[in-house]
Amino acid sequence: MAYRVLFHVNEASSEKHQTAVRTVRNLLKEMPEAEVEIVVQGDALPMALAQESTLVTELRQLVDQGVRVAVCHNTMKARGVSADALIPGLEVVPSAVGELVRRQQEGMAYIKP
Amino acid sequence: MAYRVLFHVNEASSEKHQTAVRTVRNLLKEMPEAEVEIVVQGDALPMALAQESTLVTELRQLVDQGVRVAVCHNTMKARGVSADALIPGLEVVPSAVGELVRRQQEGMAYIKP
Amino acid sequence: MAYRVLFHVNEASSEKHQTAVRTVRNLLKEMPEAEVEIVVQGDALPMALAQESTLVTELRQLVDQGVRVAVCHNTMKARGVSADALIPGLEVVPSAVGELVRRQQEGMAYIKP
Repeated sequence: MAYRVLFHVNEASSEKHQTAVRTVRNLLKEMPEAEVEIVVQGDALPMALAQESTLVTELRQLVDQGVRVAVCHNTMKARGVSADALIPGLEVVPSAVGELVRRQQEGMAYIKP
Repeated sequence: MAYRVLFHVNEASSEKHQTAVRTVRNLLKEMPEAEVEIVVQGDALPMALAQESTLVTELRQLVDQGVRVAVCHNTMKARGVSADALIPGLEVVPSAVGELVRRQQEGMAYIKP
Repeated sequence: MAYRVLFHVNEASSEKHQTAVRTVRNLLKEMPEAEVEIVVQGDALPMALAQESTLVTELRQLVDQGVRVAVCHNTMKARGVSADALIPGLEVVPSAVGELVRRQQEGMAYIKP
């Protein structure tokens, strides 16, 4: 069985962001074949910004390992952030909430780190 | 496919309550046919009270759009709140936790805003 | 239908731990046949320690009622905690995140208290 999981990150705390990244790394050690997607929304947006994030290297490594990092366009619009401000390799989705609903109903598990 | 999703709100922070409402609104713009239920529990109870909530208008609008707002009776009992103190249009369920389990196992997605 | 649910506890706040335990107790009153598992991870580890937890009696009662309490071995290793420091009756799983993914994909609901 293919394991598939969403990580929902929407808080400002950079400790929470580090926890999310560490948790995904742990998962990939245990389940290297898992399909993993991190959904970045709301106050967690700074995590995804090339100029602000303390996790640029870590997120790029996860992307290189096949993790999808999906950033909420509703959040970006509300905060005046354009796609070229994101860490390269991250993706933009129309809305985090739509992504979370759609992908869960396609069978992905949900974890709020 | 019909999208169906639960929003679980159990924290005191009114910022969290506003986030929940805004997120539901965003979802309905993207998926107007989605079946949406907000489950209010524990420290989030003030969000549902006619006299205290800062979100009376917003919640009534969501109810008018077909969103179900389900308030935990266990919480109400523990805090001495009766059904007539709730914002009109909200519903009472025996327990938030039972509702969250039952409805997920009926196929609804889960989001903790 | 057999109700099956995971409770994911990963925060330091002992109020959150008490909320988790109370919520599980409420669920078992309503659904005595439910299969319930509490997954303890990260900053929530003290909840599971015989010497530190304020919830030793409550957790043992839940275990006696058939609740599985699963503690993350990745967390234990990172914090230098061995299995004999845990409250008797609790179980160790290789990783909380793997457990949460695996068990959701086996059909368990997910609640973040």
